[in-house]
Amino acid sequence: MAMSQVVNTYPLSNYSFGTKEPKLEKDTSVADRLARMKINYMKEGMRTSVDAILLVQEHNHPHILLLQIGNTFCKLPGGRLKPGENEVEGLKRKLTSKLGGNSAALVPDWKVGECVATWWRPNFETMMYPYCPPHITKPKECKRLYIVHLSEKEYFAVPKNLKLLAVPLFELYDNVQRYGPVISTIPQQLSRFHFNMISS
Amino acid sequence: MAMSQVVNTYPLSNYSFGTKEPKLEKDTSVADRLARMKINYMKEGMRTSVDAILLVQEHNHPHILLLQIGNTFCKLPGGRLKPGENEVEGLKRKLTSKLGGNSAALVPDWKVGECVATWWRPNFETMMYPYCPPHITKPKECKRLYIVHLSEKEYFAVPKNLKLLAVPLFELYDNVQRYGPVISTIPQQLSRFHFNMISS
Repeated sequence: MAMSQVVNTYPLSNYSFGTKEPKLEKDTSVADRLARMKINYMKEGMRTSVDAILLVQEHNHPHILLLQIGNTFCKLPGGRLKPGENEVEGLKRKLTSKLGGNSAALVPDWKVGECVATWWRPNFETMMYPYCPPHITKPKECKRLYIVHLSEKEYFAVPKNLKLLAVPLFELYDNVQRYGPVISTIPQQLSRFHFNMISS
Repeated sequence: MAMSQVVNTYPLSNYSFGTKEPKLEKDTSVADRLARMKINYMKEGMRTSVDAILLVQEHNHPHILLLQIGNTFCKLPGGRLKPGENEVEGLKRKLTSKLGGNSAALVPDWKVGECVATWWRPNFETMMYPYCPPHITKPKECKRLYIVHLSEKEYFAVPKNLKLLAVPLFELYDNVQRYGPVISTIPQQLSRFHFNMISS
């Protein structure tokens, strides 16, 4: 068990980026979002969401692709699964919706790899925890983060209302104010991997 | 890849604890420690250290075994490898030295499992990072954290100058002031596992 798992990372410049129609957020405020979550919970039970960690490299340091909404809020590409949907298939569906081109030939071959983290939402609140707290028998959401292994070259179609950013691990680390608890601890969750930085 | 890895955890009350002769710290101050690290680096190159995450459960919540020195400082059981030493074998040697009884029959069968984190020390300073920072070509230490799977029952011999504590994940989480950056992010690093809490 002492070998590190290897993740190949390719230069950011290997990837090309286009735009597509906007993907509007379903909610315009946190309060709206939590209210909708409550309605969905009553209909469908615990929400499961899946997010992707897409890695590229620049200057021999791993970078993660984040979607920026407006001027400050960043999120991982991914989203909510349909009730009963398989996590891997659901993540591919979400990635294609967020970043795939408009024809099948322009959709990357998403290779869903290792699960690196699981976060739990105990209540209809913004707080999430990397464990299900004791005495919480009915968590409201379970969010799982997967590494998605990118091929050497890809084309991404970015919705016009979003920006796709490549953020270095050193910028995420210890930066909970800017990126929140889930994204800012990705460097610690990836630290067990050996990054094989491939130059073009 | 969508299955969670399972970690069995047994009740704290399954384990028994005795004492043995003190294991004195080699250094009495942080300055002494960094000075000795520098001397060793000149002789042997980068230090590799290995630490163990030993899990038990109480009230259906995972707890980690930490060694407390004095009234405040906590560390994971583990330590520095000899130059060229295998990580798994070296971790077993360190665990036996820290927590094994005085006869072979009283030494647990350490089952070293998954590496969950790698931390890097770029300079002879206390700061460590969960990645090797860009432009650092000669890091001074690499520390790797492994899950060590405990059997259903074990006996631990604790050095008289140390206390062995079982600390719940919810106490470690977001508590960098008390436990430092390495130990306080163990909950996030373990979140991808499914804990199979076995009652006695």
